[in-house]
Amino acid sequence: MSLSEKDFEYLKEHIRQVPDFPKPGILFLDITTSVKDAKSLKLTLDYLQEAVQGLGVDYVVGIESRGFIYGAALADRIGAGFIVMRKPNKLPSETISESYDLEYGSNTIEIHADAIKPGDRAIIIDDLLATGGTALAAVNLVRKAGGEVAAVVCPIELTPLKGRERLEAAGAKVISMLKYDLE
Amino acid sequence: MSLSEKDFEYLKEHIRQVPDFPKPGILFLDITTSVKDAKSLKLTLDYLQEAVQGLGVDYVVGIESRGFIYGAALADRIGAGFIVMRKPNKLPSETISESYDLEYGSNTIEIHADAIKPGDRAIIIDDLLATGGTALAAVNLVRKAGGEVAAVVCPIELTPLKGRERLEAAGAKVISMLKYDLE
Repeated sequence: MSLSEKDFEYLKEHIRQVPDFPKPGILFLDITTSVKDAKSLKLTLDYLQEAVQGLGVDYVVGIESRGFIYGAALADRIGAGFIVMRKPNKLPSETISESYDLEYGSNTIEIHADAIKPGDRAIIIDDLLATGGTALAAVNLVRKAGGEVAAVVCPIELTPLKGRERLEAAGAKVISMLKYDLE
Repeated sequence: MSLSEKDFEYLKEHIRQVPDFPKPGILFLDITTSVKDAKSLKLTLDYLQEAVQGLGVDYVVGIESRGFIYGAALADRIGAGFIVMRKPNKLPSETISESYDLEYGSNTIEIHADAIKPGDRAIIIDDLLATGGTALAAVNLVRKAGGEVAAVVCPIELTPLKGRERLEAAGAKVISMLKYDLE
């Protein structure tokens, strides 16, 4: 089912805006109020389920930790498996990893080395698309394992930060639900 | 639907046993192989959904981070909201917290101060019940906010560690799916 304008308004009303988190000058979009609301959770999953229909998804890859919230529920909806993508040293078995630069320093994400086989089709999910740095690393990591990225899925997109352009330039389809004109 | 003996065997076969993680002498039960398998994920959620039926659940409270995987999917299945319970300093708005002792040191968990209203009925979910220390702190935290704990739900239970007895002594119902005779 497609969402109405009223549904989108409802969804935006249930995302809390927290000023100065995690640091001064940042307006943080808090999805905890959205997933806490049963109707918002349902509408979000309805939207995402419809958006990924027909993509031939074997696996939903969730990025720690808010990606776990949407990812496993979406996997359950579409009958796919759920793959856990974590920060370093959290996964118990052999891993492969991908590092990426931040404004200051760098981050690394990991999946189990046997999580994805060549030819597996995956969507990658996180709560929010900003500059796309984490998402691009996730795309690279799935491809490094031999997998195909059917889409990067984020309920929220901060359009001025151009994560979408960066991901599309890397050949990844991008799906978001709520767009914000925030940096 | 109830699971057959064959289903339970299938579920156990898809939980990877990793020796010496996170430290020597510990046999770690890795649920990433279970949630990656679409059939295991579905069977697990079928089981949990049936087990919580009739408990009158307003919210599923997921403990970071593996509790997020099962929790949001279960909330979606039963039409409840999903509440995020996290490690310190991760939640962006005002929080309430509960600390508990470990063998060496202590841990703290938090929820948003406005996440639970008096009278709200919640189930608490994590991947694995061991000594029950984290789960008991979660029960105390939900009650501190005025909520009622309808059950503590863990797909895996390590029976010799007696987490169940500890939680039941605190008046909390315990639901698990797979029992292991492991310490």
